Amino acid sequence: MGLNVYLSGEIHTDWRDRIIDGAQGLDVTFSGPVTDHAASDDCGVTILGGEQSKYWHDHKGAMLNAIRTRKGIGDADVVVVRFGDKYKQWNAAFDAGLATGLGKSLVVLQPEEHDHALKEVDAAALAVARTPEQVVDILRYVLTGTLPG
Amino acid sequence: MGLNVYLSGEIHTDWRDRIIDGAQGLDVTFSGPVTDHAASDDCGVTILGGEQSKYWHDHKGAMLNAIRTRKGIGDADVVVVRFGDKYKQWNAAFDAGLATGLGKSLVVLQPEEHDHALKEVDAAALAVARTPEQVVDILRYVLTGTLPG
Amino acid sequence: MGLNVYLSGEIHTDWRDRIIDGAQGLDVTFSGPVTDHAASDDCGVTILGGEQSKYWHDHKGAMLNAIRTRKGIGDADVVVVRFGDKYKQWNAAFDAGLATGLGKSLVVLQPEEHDHALKEVDAAALAVARTPEQVVDILRYVLTGTLPG
Amino acid sequence: MGLNVYLSGEIHTDWRDRIIDGAQGLDVTFSGPVTDHAASDDCGVTILGGEQSKYWHDHKGAMLNAIRTRKGIGDADVVVVRFGDKYKQWNAAFDAGLATGLGKSLVVLQPEEHDHALKEVDAAALAVARTPEQVVDILRYVLTGTLPG
Amino acid sequence: MGLNVYLSGEIHTDWRDRIIDGAQGLDVTFSGPVTDHAASDDCGVTILGGEQSKYWHDHKGAMLNAIRTRKGIGDADVVVVRFGDKYKQWNAAFDAGLATGLGKSLVVLQPEEHDHALKEVDAAALAVARTPEQVVDILRYVLTGTLPG
Amino acid sequence: MGLNVYLSGEIHTDWRDRIIDGAQGLDVTFSGPVTDHAASDDCGVTILGGEQSKYWHDHKGAMLNAIRTRKGIGDADVVVVRFGDKYKQWNAAFDAGLATGLGKSLVVLQPEEHDHALKEVDAAALAVARTPEQVVDILRYVLTGTLPG
Amino acid sequence: MGLNVYLSGEIHTDWRDRIIDGAQGLDVTFSGPVTDHAASDDCGVTILGGEQSKYWHDHKGAMLNAIRTRKGIGDADVVVVRFGDKYKQWNAAFDAGLATGLGKSLVVLQPEEHDHALKEVDAAALAVARTPEQVVDILRYVLTGTLPG
Amino acid sequence: MGLNVYLSGEIHTDWRDRIIDGAQGLDVTFSGPVTDHAASDDCGVTILGGEQSKYWHDHKGAMLNAIRTRKGIGDADVVVVRFGDKYKQWNAAFDAGLATGLGKSLVVLQPEEHDHALKEVDAAALAVARTPEQVVDILRYVLTGTLPG
Repeated sequence: MGLNVYLSGEIHTDWRDRIIDGAQGLDVTFSGPVTDHAASDDCGVTILGGEQSKYWHDHKGAMLNAIRTRKGIGDADVVVVRFGDKYKQWNAAFDAGLATGLGKSLVVLQPEEHDHALKEVDAAALAVARTPEQVVDILRYVLTGTLPG
Repeated sequence: MGLNVYLSGEIHTDWRDRIIDGAQGLDVTFSGPVTDHAASDDCGVTILGGEQSKYWHDHKGAMLNAIRTRKGIGDADVVVVRFGDKYKQWNAAFDAGLATGLGKSLVVLQPEEHDHALKEVDAAALAVARTPEQVVDILRYVLTGTLPG
Repeated sequence: MGLNVYLSGEIHTDWRDRIIDGAQGLDVTFSGPVTDHAASDDCGVTILGGEQSKYWHDHKGAMLNAIRTRKGIGDADVVVVRFGDKYKQWNAAFDAGLATGLGKSLVVLQPEEHDHALKEVDAAALAVARTPEQVVDILRYVLTGTLPG
Repeated sequence: MGLNVYLSGEIHTDWRDRIIDGAQGLDVTFSGPVTDHAASDDCGVTILGGEQSKYWHDHKGAMLNAIRTRKGIGDADVVVVRFGDKYKQWNAAFDAGLATGLGKSLVVLQPEEHDHALKEVDAAALAVARTPEQVVDILRYVLTGTLPG
Repeated sequence: MGLNVYLSGEIHTDWRDRIIDGAQGLDVTFSGPVTDHAASDDCGVTILGGEQSKYWHDHKGAMLNAIRTRKGIGDADVVVVRFGDKYKQWNAAFDAGLATGLGKSLVVLQPEEHDHALKEVDAAALAVARTPEQVVDILRYVLTGTLPG
Repeated sequence: MGLNVYLSGEIHTDWRDRIIDGAQGLDVTFSGPVTDHAASDDCGVTILGGEQSKYWHDHKGAMLNAIRTRKGIGDADVVVVRFGDKYKQWNAAFDAGLATGLGKSLVVLQPEEHDHALKEVDAAALAVARTPEQVVDILRYVLTGTLPG
Repeated sequence: MGLNVYLSGEIHTDWRDRIIDGAQGLDVTFSGPVTDHAASDDCGVTILGGEQSKYWHDHKGAMLNAIRTRKGIGDADVVVVRFGDKYKQWNAAFDAGLATGLGKSLVVLQPEEHDHALKEVDAAALAVARTPEQVVDILRYVLTGTLPG
Repeated sequence: MGLNVYLSGEIHTDWRDRIIDGAQGLDVTFSGPVTDHAASDDCGVTILGGEQSKYWHDHKGAMLNAIRTRKGIGDADVVVVRFGDKYKQWNAAFDAGLATGLGKSLVVLQPEEHDHALKEVDAAALAVARTPEQVVDILRYVLTGTLPG
């Protein structure tokens, strides 16, 4: 048994690297969004031509990003969604809903301070983790039955 | 042709009433979440027994609310998701993702100031409206082909 | 919004009546298995002809009951599964799994003594209730937003 | 043609090993639950932090186990569910229902004494076996057309 | 609970009438193919224009009949397929396969002499009946829990 | 048995009226696109605000129209797509493909001169008609088994 | 692009070998039923124990064969169903219906004498061939765009 | 992450080659229709025997082509549909609709002059490109996050 894992959400800290590094040796294939913030914002107009309106500028980019998101989440067995300290992060919550609608196993990675605001998201999850290392421990346990320590 | 419309998101202003009132005479059936904030937060422990931990207190409630949300969104033809000025509103973005995963027509109702933060959500939508009256106009047009004015 | 609710499981106490009575006035349509134990066991051979083997006797009946079960659960929004004090009740757990596979909202009604043995079933549920009255309270809340008391 | 086979149910005897050993040389990939009973019970709190309540202790673990179960059953062509002599085994019956809801071919492995109690489960199965060796014979026949002896 | 029942297969005896008459008073809605043999054969060319080739003559008709068959079977909860004494009846077996592929409850009505030839079809069925009256008894039992006699 | 029929395609002749009139007395519910050409083109900017770019002007309207199209086709049993003499009519062919992807029964109404250009579309259809009256005859036959004349 | 092709139906002539041989060098993976008639009839009782009743003898075997059939057809891109000169061949027509219900591309291989009796089956097919060599030509064309001769 | 990309539509220019060449080094598997126009038109009668009627000549070929189209689009993550300067190109628009009905990510490649006529198709797309090179840029960005220049 191997797992496809999509890592959604916050792109400003090293949480993805910590999970990917920690999962070395496990039969996991990771995917996720483009994490280059500028590229992610501007991909639409850079490739397809500029827009005068900021709204359509954003829209063209977001639609290109959706090609990647839906492939990644559509192929995933487990979707990990990380909520950080800053920003609105509605795309993260959207991905969690999308994953739920597609019947994926959802793991949420969030600080305690967001527990109340995230309760509807968490109600759809099979695990709520506090650290990337806990996510690694979950993946190792699911694949091998081995617990940490 | 009639439409089932689920009204998701912000529960602190009168946007739902304005849409429901405006749509009188149209063949629309509305549903939405429980909008009594206290009931929504405490339903789990009130019905099923208290919890010492705030996390499980919230969790029991959110899972009961999920029964309603999934029925409403599952039966909907159109899901309208409203983002307001305050709070994290991750449940709104989650509902938008869930609606997308289930193949529903998505309409987002948002102030311009949130346009950039909502671009991934909007990329999944068939309309982005600024006022509840625009949502009514959309429903009227979809059902009757009539434009305002 | 109305709800189709399938009441699965234990057939020796009055729990179904207590839920149906308690839900009067709510927009709920109930269904469930044939609760006449003898009819349920013998329906196959009574209608389609006797079998020498007890196994096929049982099998013919169970397959007829499956026509009803799958229609009821297939049409349900909410599946309530009751575990009682006696018997193996594997059909109840099977129905809970079937409901989960079909994406239904699952509510389990169980005494505390079975909590450990039912933990995998409960992990798929949106509520674990202890009394039929709590199930009624859940249905009322989901439909009307009203809490007891 | 190869087969993915999920081996669900009883974890106290060597039935899985007997099937896996017997199927050597056949194009079968096996999966199944974590069979370390203590790890399976405690995985949630070990990884994600302790709970005062036994119910939530169990719940956190069962939800992690569900990630594995749903991946394994979701990918399976054939789900074999073993019922043994002891315990409630509601998780086994739940897996049989889940497999049925997902349209998997179901094989049940059970002693005759449980035939009556399992008749609804068996009514969803394509085979009811008495020994692990019979399950191996089924897999060999399905894959190669060869009968034993 | 009501049932949609599609009556497929042999069109030369009164078995449909006997089922429909027998089921009076039950909450059953019946559908089935066009049973006017000549109309069924010639509908395509009569409506859409003649064909020189017998093959395309038949094809145009069969495709129109498919509109009805797929609507009827697609909406059905239970598909009853009758095999009679004469003709190839491949359309009946095709409907049984289609019903199975769509997850419908299948009831086969057949004389004993066809048991061996129909074993693969029967393996997908929840009941094999010998008389139309047994089908009525099944529908009554499924809907009301009442056994004959 | 009743039928939901979506009438897609050309909006410049009276073919829809001829079908709807001809089908009076049959249990058919018709739906279709907004046939007011100007409203259909301008609905997006009229309701949601103007666009400088013609492309986005069109896009906003087409997305609103998609809400109606997908509801109508999604609920349809039969989708009739009419190709006329003029214009590109790519939306008609798109609807035919969408209907096919959703498993709907497709009827195409086309002049002979388009037969070669429409062969891929026709290959997905259960009937190719030349006149609206033939479509009425098909609906009557499917619902009642009655042939014209 | 490669194709999974399931070869269903008649097992008394060498048509499968002729297709498999003819397709050498093409990226096709073939599967099909067990073609050892005696094994196919007796597999159930040989593996799982004898039955006094001929009906259940057949039934146990047919259910084991169904594990193979549904895996093979479920994984297939193209299902070829061969109707020969003899026997009822209802299993072949059943497989054609099952393939249609699952959305597979259906190719029927039949002598002209059966054209009328098979018209409903053919109406669901994308090709009706007369010889195994034509099936090979179809597979080669679909995969490579190359026509014979 | 790799992508399956189906290249649908216009077969008279070198746009497919330009995309395939440009995407060298990316983890993309391309498929598409048979682009030999004569073979595509005549495949049906060449393999399965001639037809007197031009309509059925075309039909037999189009149905064989459908085997390839549905496999290719069914397996695709991204469907690129190219509209050129000439011909009706209804098959291209049909493929775009089919891709939408199957939930694929749609990219349209079209000259500006067709913008108005394609607005309904474009409303279902995640990108509208003007050149094959832009399609390559999209694929590279989706797979690697790298923008051109």
